[in-house]
Amino acid sequence: MSDDGSTRDLADIMAERRALVDAELDRRLPKADVPPPTIHEAMRYSVFAGGKRLRPILALFGCEAVGGKLEDAMPAAVALELIHTYSLVHDDLPAMDDDDFRRGRPTCHKVYGEAVAILAGDGLLTHAFQVLADPTDAGVPAARRLQIVGEISAAAGSVGMVGGQTMDIQAEGKALDPTTLLTLHSKKTGALLRVSLRVGGLAGGADDDAMASLTRYGERLGLAFQIVDDILDIEGSSAEMGKTAGSDLRKHKATYPAVFGLEASRREAARLLGEAREAVRPLGAGAATLLALADFVGRRRS
Amino acid sequence: MSDDGSTRDLADIMAERRALVDAELDRRLPKADVPPPTIHEAMRYSVFAGGKRLRPILALFGCEAVGGKLEDAMPAAVALELIHTYSLVHDDLPAMDDDDFRRGRPTCHKVYGEAVAILAGDGLLTHAFQVLADPTDAGVPAARRLQIVGEISAAAGSVGMVGGQTMDIQAEGKALDPTTLLTLHSKKTGALLRVSLRVGGLAGGADDDAMASLTRYGERLGLAFQIVDDILDIEGSSAEMGKTAGSDLRKHKATYPAVFGLEASRREAARLLGEAREAVRPLGAGAATLLALADFVGRRRS
Repeated sequence: MSDDGSTRDLADIMAERRALVDAELDRRLPKADVPPPTIHEAMRYSVFAGGKRLRPILALFGCEAVGGKLEDAMPAAVALELIHTYSLVHDDLPAMDDDDFRRGRPTCHKVYGEAVAILAGDGLLTHAFQVLADPTDAGVPAARRLQIVGEISAAAGSVGMVGGQTMDIQAEGKALDPTTLLTLHSKKTGALLRVSLRVGGLAGGADDDAMASLTRYGERLGLAFQIVDDILDIEGSSAEMGKTAGSDLRKHKATYPAVFGLEASRREAARLLGEAREAVRPLGAGAATLLALADFVGRRRS
Repeated sequence: MSDDGSTRDLADIMAERRALVDAELDRRLPKADVPPPTIHEAMRYSVFAGGKRLRPILALFGCEAVGGKLEDAMPAAVALELIHTYSLVHDDLPAMDDDDFRRGRPTCHKVYGEAVAILAGDGLLTHAFQVLADPTDAGVPAARRLQIVGEISAAAGSVGMVGGQTMDIQAEGKALDPTTLLTLHSKKTGALLRVSLRVGGLAGGADDDAMASLTRYGERLGLAFQIVDDILDIEGSSAEMGKTAGSDLRKHKATYPAVFGLEASRREAARLLGEAREAVRPLGAGAATLLALADFVGRRRS
């Protein structure tokens, strides 16, 4: 399979998975007219704002890579996207990053006000766990589903994503040493990306070896994804990124290129993606999509 | 048993349960020096701010009333208090109620800043679900534990507590009709109080009849508790309440006495507590503490 061929195939698969995830998000979120409507409108406004659905896709890929059924990973996929969305809504608040636009649209608090944006984030985070416990999803044993609740909450919480965001806020305007930068990224974005693969594996019935493969892959891919994000933030245009290019850097926020330089950052991303590929080779044929995804992250331009 | 006797007994039981809950909260929250320390300090600052632990106590009472073991309800008890605390931290934010003090202490954002207070709330909410999924708690079957995750997230989410807070924000400065007021309170505080009894019952292995008793009791007790709260907010002094007396009313927030008048509010609270007592009589001897608690709510002065 040529690089172009696998990229085209992967793009098709990702588009198809994304459509499935969007349909499930729509089905599993309260409708916009459920009282009180404002909160549900605000939650839906933020969820349906054109996200890539990367975390849900990773969960579905993780599940399929170990031979699981796609629908068994869907509750986890939806929960991950709800949590990712809530984190963006809260990050954008005036007291946090104070961003007026995201992906070219006004942020939640610009449309609904700060109070409703805080509550919409809270509602999305809470709803993620309701989705994970939905009694109508009975394909995965309760013990595994409880494990998924535990893994996602650990990754999203104060030692994971929320902790990383705290470090990020505190790092603003400061020079960071490389170790602190790595810890920050590992928590802020890495933890949720890594757990996406893991909960996909758990839903798909992965054994310990397969879980180890998925974990290592998720760790390396997540870190590479963040580095590429930082590089694109410097190189990208506003149009391509949908936000003000270089905005992270202007706020003197900790980024890879700012600490390590652009060239070293590119090399590090490539190295990590190589390790990601190695990690999933033991999964055999099931790894094909994950291998293509690693190539895709290495080549992404937006 | 005289009224005074049962009150003294109940006060002892509640103090003892509260101490157990405090110890479990301390054990189950990340220590204050876990990196990044700021977020864990802020989470602990808010949790250990002198709360009554009413929701955990309701969960423990619900569990014991159906013959369950106290420790089986402890994860739910801790999770409920973490969620209650997060809701207070977010409610106090400048964009929400803008309160500088709670129970006589500076609020979380006054001590740690708005960004960390938002994140501390997020961290507490997320940690609640990690506690519910803790693999070292194995006394309750996984299916029941998953049901507890589902019930708590539904009660805390956008059709429950978060929805009630949204209504409350939107009602500020407006006259509310009685039906809307009842819906608001049922969501904002009622849902979490009611579910506290329910998840206690679930953890304790309650059958459907016992669950129905606890649900009805929790509903009536929760509503009565809110009405008494509103009455005390008007009558109480700053010293007794630990916050500025009449503060809800000054902001023209929707309260029972504001809509129904003080006397009708007192009668309604008494009527609801009567229904709460009736609801748990079928539980027999197990209902004793719940009956005493209904008396206690009717008599509380702070």
